[in-house]
Amino acid sequence: MITVVILGLGNVGSHLFKVFEKTPGIKVLQVYTRSISKETSQNQKMVSNIKDITPLADVYIAAVGDDKIKQITSQLPFTQKLVVHTSGGAALEDCSDSNRKGVFYPLQTFSKNKAVDFNTIPICVEAENEKDLSLLTNLGSLISQSVSVISSSEREKLHVAAVFVNNFVNELYHISEDILTQQQLDFSLLAPLIKETANKIEYLTPAVAQTGPAKRGDKNTILKHQKLLSKQQQEVYQLLTSSIQKRNIS
Amino acid sequence: MITVVILGLGNVGSHLFKVFEKTPGIKVLQVYTRSISKETSQNQKMVSNIKDITPLADVYIAAVGDDKIKQITSQLPFTQKLVVHTSGGAALEDCSDSNRKGVFYPLQTFSKNKAVDFNTIPICVEAENEKDLSLLTNLGSLISQSVSVISSSEREKLHVAAVFVNNFVNELYHISEDILTQQQLDFSLLAPLIKETANKIEYLTPAVAQTGPAKRGDKNTILKHQKLLSKQQQEVYQLLTSSIQKRNIS
Repeated sequence: MITVVILGLGNVGSHLFKVFEKTPGIKVLQVYTRSISKETSQNQKMVSNIKDITPLADVYIAAVGDDKIKQITSQLPFTQKLVVHTSGGAALEDCSDSNRKGVFYPLQTFSKNKAVDFNTIPICVEAENEKDLSLLTNLGSLISQSVSVISSSEREKLHVAAVFVNNFVNELYHISEDILTQQQLDFSLLAPLIKETANKIEYLTPAVAQTGPAKRGDKNTILKHQKLLSKQQQEVYQLLTSSIQKRNIS
Repeated sequence: MITVVILGLGNVGSHLFKVFEKTPGIKVLQVYTRSISKETSQNQKMVSNIKDITPLADVYIAAVGDDKIKQITSQLPFTQKLVVHTSGGAALEDCSDSNRKGVFYPLQTFSKNKAVDFNTIPICVEAENEKDLSLLTNLGSLISQSVSVISSSEREKLHVAAVFVNNFVNELYHISEDILTQQQLDFSLLAPLIKETANKIEYLTPAVAQTGPAKRGDKNTILKHQKLLSKQQQEVYQLLTSSIQKRNIS
């Protein structure tokens, strides 16, 4: 049995809490959250004073914003325990020095009211020593089939790559929605294309999956498209078109 | 029974051929392709001389590149028949004047060896008269639950929006793969994130689904990320970050 305290009840914290609670072999002792809501007030595990956190857990998971990791982890009322964060963007060193440091980074996008299947989520773990690394690996394996030991410098790259396929892809969805809404066309017309574009990547490399006017070098269509766009949309169109075309040359 | 001749056996043509062949109520009379391959040579329906195309079909579907539509459709050995193209980027008028014009545009990305489920693919139809529009709508309904009448000017916008969510999204996958490969990290680590980013869009608008450093205005992470990227990757990072951030202001 691995005993856990979760620090923070945002998107990541609340999803971790849910999956840990239903997983045999994991026991959540407490959840620290500054603001206990109506929803959570009935739950005996909720703690709103950081000084009330038990020193008896195997691991403390700080699921808070990158800029809050140091602050929260340095206020814990004990030392020499394993305290980890869940961030793709923060280094191992961002945890306070008063405890043993680690990282437990679930590589996924979490929204509060959208359930996720942890079983397929890559859990990236890091720790200062073998014993802690092994505990984090075990904890990850209880909720996911995919646990990888990833160093801080590797995780940095992984995180920036994740920004491209998540935040930036979502911004392209947003621009596309803007274009359709302006024409009173329903964005849901693109839903099957959006899904297939993502699904293809399981079978084909991005290089092989690419199609369209930039790839074909179809200048007429590219010119026609640019005339339909706002100045800002044009900039994105041009940059990504030239990014695709540079691959054709090289 | 709707009788069809398919002109062209590229990605779109071959997928249409496959789905038409297995759909009751549709009969493919012929498929025109200049180069008959080993694979297709056993099939009696294949025709490599455009003069051999039967004048007896209800509809002729030119599934060829935008720049080939006029050429192919103007060589057909008959007049006054319904001849349509399958392109998002070409106008109704791009079909030859010698026959009745129309469009039968399946809004999806097709790769030769990846099966697709036509049932969910939006089919966008357009024609010069009601009777032809009704025939194309019926044909679409036999293979898909989603048939929409879309004008040429609407289809233009739809097509450019499709380029954003398909070609440009795929380019972001490619950049992200580049970043990971350089670090000897496996691109498949991002597969669940890629899928979830696409799936979210069925439940959440892009505005609500957005997360990450640009949305949060997390300058430290943005600076850290840019240092990890090549000059070209930085340009894309900056432009899409500022595109996200401009939404926060307005």
